Amino acid sequence: MTGSANPHVTPNVTPRETGASTGPEELSRGVLVVGAGLLGTSVALALTATGVDVRLRDCDADALETALTMGAGRAEQDADTPAALAVVAVPPAQAGTAVTEILRSGAAEYATDVASVKVLPAEQVRAGSTTPGRYVGSHPMAGREVSGARAALPDLFEGRPWVMCPDASTDQQAVVRTLAVARTCGAAPVTMAAASHDAAVALVSHAPHVVSALVAGLLVDAPAQQVRLAGPGVTDVTRVAAADPSMWSEILQVNATAVRTVLTGLRDSLDDVLDSLSQVSGTQVSGQQPVRQNEQAARLDAALQRGVDGRFRLPGKHGLRGVDYDTVTIVVDDRPGQLAAVFADTDRIGVNVEDVRIEHRPGQPVGALQLDVLAGHGATLQDGLQQQGWTVHG
Amino acid sequence: MTGSANPHVTPNVTPRETGASTGPEELSRGVLVVGAGLLGTSVALALTATGVDVRLRDCDADALETALTMGAGRAEQDADTPAALAVVAVPPAQAGTAVTEILRSGAAEYATDVASVKVLPAEQVRAGSTTPGRYVGSHPMAGREVSGARAALPDLFEGRPWVMCPDASTDQQAVVRTLAVARTCGAAPVTMAAASHDAAVALVSHAPHVVSALVAGLLVDAPAQQVRLAGPGVTDVTRVAAADPSMWSEILQVNATAVRTVLTGLRDSLDDVLDSLSQVSGTQVSGQQPVRQNEQAARLDAALQRGVDGRFRLPGKHGLRGVDYDTVTIVVDDRPGQLAAVFADTDRIGVNVEDVRIEHRPGQPVGALQLDVLAGHGATLQDGLQQQGWTVHG
Repeated sequence: MTGSANPHVTPNVTPRETGASTGPEELSRGVLVVGAGLLGTSVALALTATGVDVRLRDCDADALETALTMGAGRAEQDADTPAALAVVAVPPAQAGTAVTEILRSGAAEYATDVASVKVLPAEQVRAGSTTPGRYVGSHPMAGREVSGARAALPDLFEGRPWVMCPDASTDQQAVVRTLAVARTCGAAPVTMAAASHDAAVALVSHAPHVVSALVAGLLVDAPAQQVRLAGPGVTDVTRVAAADPSMWSEILQVNATAVRTVLTGLRDSLDDVLDSLSQVSGTQVSGQQPVRQNEQAARLDAALQRGVDGRFRLPGKHGLRGVDYDTVTIVVDDRPGQLAAVFADTDRIGVNVEDVRIEHRPGQPVGALQLDVLAGHGATLQDGLQQQGWTVHG
Repeated sequence: MTGSANPHVTPNVTPRETGASTGPEELSRGVLVVGAGLLGTSVALALTATGVDVRLRDCDADALETALTMGAGRAEQDADTPAALAVVAVPPAQAGTAVTEILRSGAAEYATDVASVKVLPAEQVRAGSTTPGRYVGSHPMAGREVSGARAALPDLFEGRPWVMCPDASTDQQAVVRTLAVARTCGAAPVTMAAASHDAAVALVSHAPHVVSALVAGLLVDAPAQQVRLAGPGVTDVTRVAAADPSMWSEILQVNATAVRTVLTGLRDSLDDVLDSLSQVSGTQVSGQQPVRQNEQAARLDAALQRGVDGRFRLPGKHGLRGVDYDTVTIVVDDRPGQLAAVFADTDRIGVNVEDVRIEHRPGQPVGALQLDVLAGHGATLQDGLQQQGWTVHG
C-alpha cells in the first residue's frame, strides 16, 4: 500500500502516472454490485473492463460464482472499506429495502438501483433509511430475452438511455457517481422525476406488454384454421407476449398505479371504438353501404388516424430520427446463402440498409425480405438487384 | 376465328397442340377483373402471364390505363362474350353489389370477390341477385403497405392462403373457376364458411390492428421525454398502426360484428387485468413486498401465461413450423457494407438464417443485428462470427 493524500484515488494505483485504466475517478474507491443477474453482472463486466474495483454480492452462491468466473469482479469481503457506490440489481420489489440495508451497514457511501420502476424503491428508501439523500434511483433501458449472469454482456447498455431520478433531497455525489457508472457502461444518461419515469415505462413498455399478451391470449382457444390465417400484423403485435410471464407479473405489480392509468385510458378508447362499431353494425344487415355515414364512423376514423400520428412519434423508422425510408421487397428462397447474396449485392450497389425484416410464408419455401433504405435510394437498390437477377418489388 | 367444338377452349388457340400457355382450361373463356387496384391488378398480371384472356374494368380511367400499361390485360369491350369468371376487386362495402350487377348483365358466367370480409358481400348477393349460386366469395390473404395499380405484383399471392367461402347453394363451377384463379396466382387455397372467415380475420388481423392503433394513439399526447424511452417492444406492437386509416376504417366497419366480438373479449380480459392491478396497488403504498401475495396476482400471472401460450400458436417463429430457434446478436455499425459482411461470414460458416431483426439505438451510430437460426446452430454461428472479429452475443 503506497497510500495517497487524495481520497478519490485508490491507494495502490496512480492512473495518470502509469497510464493504466482504472475507470472514472468518482468510482476509484470501488463499486459494490448487489445481485449477479443479467443487469448487475453486465454493469460489473463493463466497470471491471475499465479497471474499477468491483465487489460482487449475491445470496445465490451459484449466481455469484458464475459472475466471478466471467471476470465480473471479486467477491465482497467483510474487511472491505466502503465502496464509492453500490449498484443494487435485485428484483424491483426488493430494491429499496436492499438499498436501505446497504446504506445502514456502510458497505457503500452512496447507492443506486437499476430496477425498472422508480417510485416504489424511492418510497422504500425514504421510509427505511436514515440517509435517503445518499440514494438516487436509476434505470438503464436495456434487457435481453434471456436472464441470469450467464446472459450478461459488458456492452448491454451501449447507446441505451440510462434514466436517473434524483429529487430535491438527493445528495449531488449520488448523482455524480451513478452518472459515472452509466457513462462507463456507454449509456446515454437521462434525468427525470421518478413518477415521470414510471409513467413513461408504463406507456412505452408495461401497458404495451399487457396488450400484446391479451391479444396473444385470444389465440389460445381459436380454431387452428383461424390461427393459420395469421400474417405479419398479429405476429408483430404479439411478439413481446412471449417474454417470461413471472418477471413481467412482478414488473406490472410494482408499477401497478402507472400501468393502470395507461390501461384505463386504453380501455376508454377501446370502449369508444366498440361503441362506434356497434352503431355501424346496425346498418350493416340492411345490405346498405355501411360506411362513412355517421358520427360514429368519424370517431373510428379519428381513432385510427390518432394511431398513425402516435406511431410516427416513435424513435426509429419514420420517427424521431427525422428520416423517411423506401422499402424494397426481395423474394428469397429459404436456403443458405440467399441472404448473404442479397446483402453482398446490396453492398456492391452502394446502398445502406437501415432496417430489415423477413416475412415467412406459411408452408412455403419462399419468403419476402424487406429492406428499408433512405428515401430516394429505393429505386437504385431495386434496379440494381433486378439486374443481378433478383425478384424485387419497390 | 377458327371456332372450336370445345367450349372450354378459346377459339383461336389450342394449347395442347401449340404448347403455348393459356392458363387453366377452366378460365379459357377469359376472366373479367373489376377494379384495377392493388389486388385486382395483381390477379390480372398473374393470369395474363399464363396466357389467360384478362379483361379489365374500372370506373377510374386513370387506374384502368395504368393497369393496361403494366400489361395486366385488355380493356373490357361491349362485344365481349361472357367471361368464365369475374374477379371483383372493389372496396369491401361495394363488393356484393358489384357481383350482383355483373351476374345480372351476363358479363361473366360466374363471379368471385376478393374483399377482406365475406359475410357482407354474400348477404348483398343473396339479397340482390337472381343467381346467387354463381357467386363464391374469396379472400387472398396478401397485401402491401402501398395501394393502387402501380403497386401491383404478379407474385403478390405466391404462397399465401386464399380463402374460399362456398355455401350449400354455391354452384360447383364457381368454386372450380375461383380455385383455378387462386392456383394460377400461386396461392394456397383454403375453404371455410363466410362467418368463420370473418371471425378469423377479426381475430388475427382486424382486432390486433385496432389494438395497435389505440396503443400508438396513447403516444400522441405523451411528453417527448417519455416517448424517447420507447424500445423494440412498443415499436413492434404499434407497427401496423401506421397503415392507411381510411382503408382500415372501412374494413372494420364492414366486419363490425366479428370485430366487436373479439374486442369485447379483449376488453373483458383488460378489465380483469385492471382489477388485479387495482388490488395489488393497494398493498404497494405500505412499502411491503407487493408481489405474489394474493388471488389477484395469480390472475395477472395467468393472463401473461395465456399470452405466451397464444403467441406460440402463431405460424412462424416458435409457432406452427414446429421448430425452435437460437438467437445470435451482432453489434454492427450504421454504415454500408456491415450487413453484407455479416451475412457473407454467416454464409461461409454454413448456418442458415431463419429470421433477422435490426435494433436501432436512439442517437447512436451502432445497432444490434439479431439473427434467428435453427436450435443448436447458434453456438456455431456465434463462434464463427467471433473468429471473424465480430462482437457477438448468444
